[in-house]
Amino acid sequence: MMEVQIERIRKDIETINSFNATPERGVTRFTFSSEYMGARSYVIEELKKIGAQVSTTLGGNLRGRVEGSERGRTAVMTGSHVDSVFQGGRFDGVSGVVSALEVARVIVEKKIPHHHPIDVIVFAEEEGSRFGSVMMGSRGWIGKLDLDAFRKIKDKDGISYAEAMERSGVAPDDPSILKPEMVKAMIELHIEQSLVLESKGLRIGVVEGINGIKQFMVTLEGISNHAGATPMWLRHDALQGAVRIIAAVEEMVTPDVGNSTVATVGFLNCEPNQTNVIPGRVQFTLDIRDLDFKRVDEAVGRILTVIGKICEERGLTFEIKPRSDTPPVTLSKDIVHLLEEVARRRNIQTLRMASGALHDSSILPEITKVGMIFVPSRDGRSHCPEEFTDLKDIKLGADILLDTVVELAS
Amino acid sequence: MMEVQIERIRKDIETINSFNATPERGVTRFTFSSEYMGARSYVIEELKKIGAQVSTTLGGNLRGRVEGSERGRTAVMTGSHVDSVFQGGRFDGVSGVVSALEVARVIVEKKIPHHHPIDVIVFAEEEGSRFGSVMMGSRGWIGKLDLDAFRKIKDKDGISYAEAMERSGVAPDDPSILKPEMVKAMIELHIEQSLVLESKGLRIGVVEGINGIKQFMVTLEGISNHAGATPMWLRHDALQGAVRIIAAVEEMVTPDVGNSTVATVGFLNCEPNQTNVIPGRVQFTLDIRDLDFKRVDEAVGRILTVIGKICEERGLTFEIKPRSDTPPVTLSKDIVHLLEEVARRRNIQTLRMASGALHDSSILPEITKVGMIFVPSRDGRSHCPEEFTDLKDIKLGADILLDTVVELAS
Repeated sequence: MMEVQIERIRKDIETINSFNATPERGVTRFTFSSEYMGARSYVIEELKKIGAQVSTTLGGNLRGRVEGSERGRTAVMTGSHVDSVFQGGRFDGVSGVVSALEVARVIVEKKIPHHHPIDVIVFAEEEGSRFGSVMMGSRGWIGKLDLDAFRKIKDKDGISYAEAMERSGVAPDDPSILKPEMVKAMIELHIEQSLVLESKGLRIGVVEGINGIKQFMVTLEGISNHAGATPMWLRHDALQGAVRIIAAVEEMVTPDVGNSTVATVGFLNCEPNQTNVIPGRVQFTLDIRDLDFKRVDEAVGRILTVIGKICEERGLTFEIKPRSDTPPVTLSKDIVHLLEEVARRRNIQTLRMASGALHDSSILPEITKVGMIFVPSRDGRSHCPEEFTDLKDIKLGADILLDTVVELAS
Repeated sequence: MMEVQIERIRKDIETINSFNATPERGVTRFTFSSEYMGARSYVIEELKKIGAQVSTTLGGNLRGRVEGSERGRTAVMTGSHVDSVFQGGRFDGVSGVVSALEVARVIVEKKIPHHHPIDVIVFAEEEGSRFGSVMMGSRGWIGKLDLDAFRKIKDKDGISYAEAMERSGVAPDDPSILKPEMVKAMIELHIEQSLVLESKGLRIGVVEGINGIKQFMVTLEGISNHAGATPMWLRHDALQGAVRIIAAVEEMVTPDVGNSTVATVGFLNCEPNQTNVIPGRVQFTLDIRDLDFKRVDEAVGRILTVIGKICEERGLTFEIKPRSDTPPVTLSKDIVHLLEEVARRRNIQTLRMASGALHDSSILPEITKVGMIFVPSRDGRSHCPEEFTDLKDIKLGADILLDTVVELAS
């Protein structure tokens, strides 16, 4: 059975993370920054060592192509990103890039026959940390963001995406939009960024889809008054209403362990926010996600009923404003089955899961079959210096990626 | 039966409130500001019209003395304050000052005999709006704040209390500390700043004491994580813990309507306070008050138990820091009885109550017998432009004040 080499993966991860704007705390590598260009150059050199043709695609993504034995075939793509959040972790994105690179190395070295070209991809600005807009590279490549958008979207210093590409010498040498007839499939290995695999003692997740998201801003208005002078039974305390709604948000989506719906109140603002004043106005967000959008709508319906009931009981008024409405993305069932079959051959138990976070793999299903492999995140931590994934798990994920790419490219 | 004149009270209130730094929104009259000095001058002129001896006491309070028929007797004091919060109301403080002024007018005009001198007092910096420290005038007068403190306590422009007095020409002409042997009693009429009288359809409250206060800052720590990627059953959401504690705070102090304990969470800070991130850290305040400090301690004990229980269930850690611990103040039982007796003679039903807010009358019990008359606040609103008290209620309160002052000064 073919295997990737763990020591090469270790060296790749270490080298890429040596390019870091905040070495004293986590990893910061913003798209087209000098650290980013250092990491990108390392990947380019490694790709060139195995004879890959390196180019920059529309949107600023890096592509290293290992040609197949037949010209004109659709490409099998694999990769991820090397840009990071501010003071993020060492594995988010990087794990998928180094796995793709190592898979290409093994295929070239072992001279594994393949008809289709194999493309190692480093997507640009996945995190949106520099330009405030996520997955710009993949969206640009499939034509969802045009040059005008790349000129308008700017970082905090007023430098546009287009200008930043130019300044760092990243000019697309292939200006074509990525079309269905150019790609056979895209497989991304990524850290789970959650606790599910770890809590079940599993090492490989097969992603069925990306959760749909509905977000709302809820505003409750009561009456602000003196905390000492107002008896309890004469209050219209907006926070006391809000806390009962927020408690209900959790209770309504966790009737039993295993329910896939997640609901979060991550933002809360209390006014006037004074120790000795009864809160008159509270705003909070609702973020509700599921792979099954009907369940999201059911949860939203239940929460709206609770908001109405609690506000009526307490003499509060409320306003609910939708903030985002992103339908779920279904990944390729064929690839789900293939990933499971490949893992079975290695006697590895897998778990079908939904991704709660967005990835470039949320964008690409518009044009091709997409699959994702998840590897465990210790304590579920991500986007922080504590982010950690065992190298053995990345190696196992890369082995499964290798088999899958070989199968698809054959 | 003697009566005050409602039209004079109306004119006094209107004239004092014509001195206002924010006429477009509520009333703003900070201590020793030009608006304050305008209102103060008006009171001085009105006092001089009835032949009162006007002076400035230690601490910058205004005193207008109507001499009694016997020299050397203790003074019967009545008054309140004319400084306001930023964009406050027209009645807080002002009601007590104009009632005291009108009582003195009636006593002088009707030549009502009294052995004791009657002192109309305008306390300085009751609200603490300018210098950030409440009841400075009364605390200074009884020697609780010395000249050094008045030089150190500064407004936001760096002007000290002592300097502000000097700049506005308010020099104490009587530098003596107020001692028990100088005062017989102090009676303050004040708006209730709450809903109790209104909700019971009563017009006069007799204050038995000022609530004691314990305040705490509670910090809960959980684990911040991705709102999409973390299933409900693997979360340690600090906000979900906090909301259950905050709900319990209300439930524990309202076992039945009429319980005098009040508990408020007025401040809440959520971190990182992002829509798509599970809250990792939440801070909130607890403010618990009762005239009976044992009940405050009992409520605190129950809340601490709940905090421990909820944090254990949810895998959160907590820290509780005391912020303030102010014992209750008991007002004079003799004065409570006198106020009730005076009201009974006028066939007015009264309600014994605790004051949830602090007043200069919280300071003076250290040196003399203190009583307070509350008149209703519409909708319980105070410290806001909506603050309103019916002039007829102020007139009735002033009638009761008149009888009480005459009785005490006779």
